Amino acid sequence: MGKHIPFAQYLFRRLTQLHCHSLHGVPGDFFLRALDHIPQSGLRWIGNASELCAGYAADGYARVGSQLLRHKPGLRSGSSPIVGALMTTYGVGELSATNAVAGAYAESVPVVHFVGTPSRKAMWGDNKLPVHHTLGDGRMNVYAEMAKSISCSRALLYKYDDITTAAELYDEALQMAVIQSKPVYVGVASDMFEQPVLEDMLEKPLDTKPPLSNWRSEDTVLDVLLDKLRTSRRPLIIADGLSYHFDFQSEINALVSLTGIPSMCFTFGKGVIDESLPTWDPALPNTTEYSQNADLVLIFGPVLGDTNTAGWSAIPDVQNTFLFNLDSVAVSGHVVPNVRSRTLLQRLLMRLKEENVVRKPKFERTQRDAPRKAPSANSTILQDDLWPALSDFVKPEDTLLLANGTPLVGGRAIQLKSGCQVIASPIWNAIGSMLPAAQGVALAKRDHQLPGRTILLEGDGSFQVTAQSISDIIRYKLDVTIFIANNAGYTYERWLNGMHAEYNDVPAWRYTDAPRFFGVKEDDPTYPTLGRRVQTWGELQEVLHDDRVGDGKGLKIIDIVLDPEDVPEKAKPGLARASNALRTT
Amino acid sequence: MGKHIPFAQYLFRRLTQLHCHSLHGVPGDFFLRALDHIPQSGLRWIGNASELCAGYAADGYARVGSQLLRHKPGLRSGSSPIVGALMTTYGVGELSATNAVAGAYAESVPVVHFVGTPSRKAMWGDNKLPVHHTLGDGRMNVYAEMAKSISCSRALLYKYDDITTAAELYDEALQMAVIQSKPVYVGVASDMFEQPVLEDMLEKPLDTKPPLSNWRSEDTVLDVLLDKLRTSRRPLIIADGLSYHFDFQSEINALVSLTGIPSMCFTFGKGVIDESLPTWDPALPNTTEYSQNADLVLIFGPVLGDTNTAGWSAIPDVQNTFLFNLDSVAVSGHVVPNVRSRTLLQRLLMRLKEENVVRKPKFERTQRDAPRKAPSANSTILQDDLWPALSDFVKPEDTLLLANGTPLVGGRAIQLKSGCQVIASPIWNAIGSMLPAAQGVALAKRDHQLPGRTILLEGDGSFQVTAQSISDIIRYKLDVTIFIANNAGYTYERWLNGMHAEYNDVPAWRYTDAPRFFGVKEDDPTYPTLGRRVQTWGELQEVLHDDRVGDGKGLKIIDIVLDPEDVPEKAKPGLARASNALRTT
Repeated sequence: MGKHIPFAQYLFRRLTQLHCHSLHGVPGDFFLRALDHIPQSGLRWIGNASELCAGYAADGYARVGSQLLRHKPGLRSGSSPIVGALMTTYGVGELSATNAVAGAYAESVPVVHFVGTPSRKAMWGDNKLPVHHTLGDGRMNVYAEMAKSISCSRALLYKYDDITTAAELYDEALQMAVIQSKPVYVGVASDMFEQPVLEDMLEKPLDTKPPLSNWRSEDTVLDVLLDKLRTSRRPLIIADGLSYHFDFQSEINALVSLTGIPSMCFTFGKGVIDESLPTWDPALPNTTEYSQNADLVLIFGPVLGDTNTAGWSAIPDVQNTFLFNLDSVAVSGHVVPNVRSRTLLQRLLMRLKEENVVRKPKFERTQRDAPRKAPSANSTILQDDLWPALSDFVKPEDTLLLANGTPLVGGRAIQLKSGCQVIASPIWNAIGSMLPAAQGVALAKRDHQLPGRTILLEGDGSFQVTAQSISDIIRYKLDVTIFIANNAGYTYERWLNGMHAEYNDVPAWRYTDAPRFFGVKEDDPTYPTLGRRVQTWGELQEVLHDDRVGDGKGLKIIDIVLDPEDVPEKAKPGLARASNALRTT
Repeated sequence: MGKHIPFAQYLFRRLTQLHCHSLHGVPGDFFLRALDHIPQSGLRWIGNASELCAGYAADGYARVGSQLLRHKPGLRSGSSPIVGALMTTYGVGELSATNAVAGAYAESVPVVHFVGTPSRKAMWGDNKLPVHHTLGDGRMNVYAEMAKSISCSRALLYKYDDITTAAELYDEALQMAVIQSKPVYVGVASDMFEQPVLEDMLEKPLDTKPPLSNWRSEDTVLDVLLDKLRTSRRPLIIADGLSYHFDFQSEINALVSLTGIPSMCFTFGKGVIDESLPTWDPALPNTTEYSQNADLVLIFGPVLGDTNTAGWSAIPDVQNTFLFNLDSVAVSGHVVPNVRSRTLLQRLLMRLKEENVVRKPKFERTQRDAPRKAPSANSTILQDDLWPALSDFVKPEDTLLLANGTPLVGGRAIQLKSGCQVIASPIWNAIGSMLPAAQGVALAKRDHQLPGRTILLEGDGSFQVTAQSISDIIRYKLDVTIFIANNAGYTYERWLNGMHAEYNDVPAWRYTDAPRFFGVKEDDPTYPTLGRRVQTWGELQEVLHDDRVGDGKGLKIIDIVLDPEDVPEKAKPGLARASNALRTT
């Protein structure tokens, strides 16, 4: 017989094998004892102020996998090499995280959600009297049922008497999380954490290799694709953001470099393709003359939601369209299952290197807008000036998070440097998601010693949903730079309905006081913080050129005051369309 | 043909018929246009900073029904006369409120949850391309499915083409909310709000009368009960908190006054029975010699969860126990369905007035603890001194909210004045619920011109979960007095496991800065705010005797610094038991 370890340690050490070194959550009595085993497992407990924040932070943590892959290509296996993880208590805890986990599901992020439940006796037993955190009606399994729709796999370990079986089921769930790049739900009863399990079980590596393609299908798709590429005169590549999670980034860039096929992205896909490549087109989210007349379109890692594609208008209406998903390819609307896009892409690249099938298409990239006349120093800040101005602030390897609303729309205009990743929410579009996600990103960057700053472009409405993440950032001394586009309301909603309606107002908080309110130690040399409110173009310029802002160390909050009705000129036609749709349907 | 009104107005005017004058929520594009119809409906839109806060606030709002009933007995019909209401957007909004709605379900609070969904075309149609806020896989009904477990009725109005049918289904859901005293889910598509519906439909009153008892069952229970009362020598009445929601309060007090039966309460039931009655026993949560040897126990509106009953130890182990629920009575463990406890109680009272069956039992009430020696002015504040000291601060008709953890356990020691209602969470026990609930309570008191202050006894861990409610309180200039038991952590969890563990720490926020941070206008004569931090007994006394604190006007935040390990002496045995249970199961 080998050495035994407590089950809690088994659970947590397995996580570290998936490059997760931080476990987010809010403590709960049903799993307090599990927390004692975290340090010995090589993990760190991150105590968040709320479960919603913990959930989004775990999501953000996992999304850094894409940067890690670029720096450690040895970790490549076909999806994000990092899982995010959170632990919440039964009922009251898990349900508060539901929205974040559902978002991870919608956007294909591998998040492991541990739920600490009452003891197995309480979960299975014939209880006459109810336990706290239940609905009081004896339905012990009801929350796990609710989680079914937003998990690719559920390991309800509390159903098992035998701890070895429980450990095996847990392993399977972890494998599913990575292979399918989706959240999994792990329910563990309070009496399981101390149970002994054989340490040797940890020696068996988790099998996160994706299933092989059906070779016949893959061959067929490859042949059709090569054929189309041979005859195409106007091919187009569109990157979308799931390319980050599905580990397509390296192949897409190689494809673009090799063939010179013109390329663009949807909002979520910003940063996937190196924006300095000569055939990169910054037209996003607009179509171009070229894209409208393309005869072959390859879309990688697509999320074809309305808010990601300018109300679907950015999706070229082209018969010859290939959609490359994790494990299927849609060819002209016909889904071919069981094809791993990444291996298909690798074979495509090999074939293309052997045979130069792509004729250099005639292509004129969209010119970036000519710089606008510089505003005078004391003029108010317009969004048409703000976002381009941030282009100079961005440095290579920065991770840029775009909150929903103003920053998501405006941030598309920022020019990226090489190695920049953009994190956005293409379909879930929950306000409040990106501040906690930034906490998770900053932590993952630190855990994995990755370069570049964590820069959050935040909205005021978004900030208010999950403001307590500032406390989490301070508590763990994370490096996060936050620009708040403070337009005193839900500005995009104003343009949809109720331009002057009170319901679109957001109360004026004193954002720059946040570090102090949330308990930062003042003059702590190990953790600098800074808050600045800027109301004029001159003040903005000063901040953007201040090294104390640009160094990315500690917590910076730049409160940028904008007019409540100001939006970028380019966004107006889309907003008018959306507003009209709201009125006519 | 009569006059038509937009469906949104129909929805909202119906709410006002259930004495709901405020609709909580966070705006979402799918229902922006509905918000334009709120003012004409006699409602007010309360824009919360987060959906979780909106959900808890709606719950708190409804719980004020009990005070309203005492002041307007004409509204009595067998449950709370007020419903709470919130409106959230499809997916991202509703899921953020799930935890609050589930809590309302567990604790029998009538909350109407409107969810604004995409248009019916999008909900039913054969969409090829996904809409934002979906999971991206075409499962449009998935969130409503998740809500099924935590709603007593769902009106999925988006399934109906005919608006009159939709209106009727909505009415039925509202009726169910009141009759069952539980949350209902109302899904309305974005294209429905402007559809015309006959105004006359509003003339048909909602039928919220509960179904009659099965008379045979009611007669049987009444006879058995009278019989038991005739022979009992040591009867005992225990009030629990659902008596507030089920409209038992008046009858229970009449019963206690009439018969002189000794009475106690579980934590949640505090305030149901007038604490100045001579047979009231303040032993809570302990049992007494009398309760241990009772021969007949009547428990009203019970929630028999562990945290409400000192780990079930406060429930007398007596064969002759009657549990009075909304529409059933359990007699010695045998549930008799279809008996409305309230009508049963009214008949019982009539019979008892005719025939004096109860022999005055020999009873000695538990003496309240002798006042402890007053601490010196500069000594630190101990919980054993703190809670009794608040007894003098409390005035008649105050509503006292006890956050989970420290305030729930300690607050039991406060002596109430007549007309005080205590709001607590007996089984859901989510930290973070009571601050937003206090916002809802303060609003309902204002909407219904009810007397007394809204006083929240808060914990630091709880405060941090839903701190943005402070912004909501300020935005709507609500009167809330908050005492924060600031012990730098989850103190009750420390006693369960990890006394000095970092995971039980809560970061130190500057709570008294909250009004400023959350944007209060300084020196606003219409809305005074005040923040005080007290660290010594003398400072506490000063604050408690300061009229600017006691007047209840505006927002007060008293940050009471406690030792992280200090708990009331009386709580220690229970904590030791619970800690032990955590170790042995």
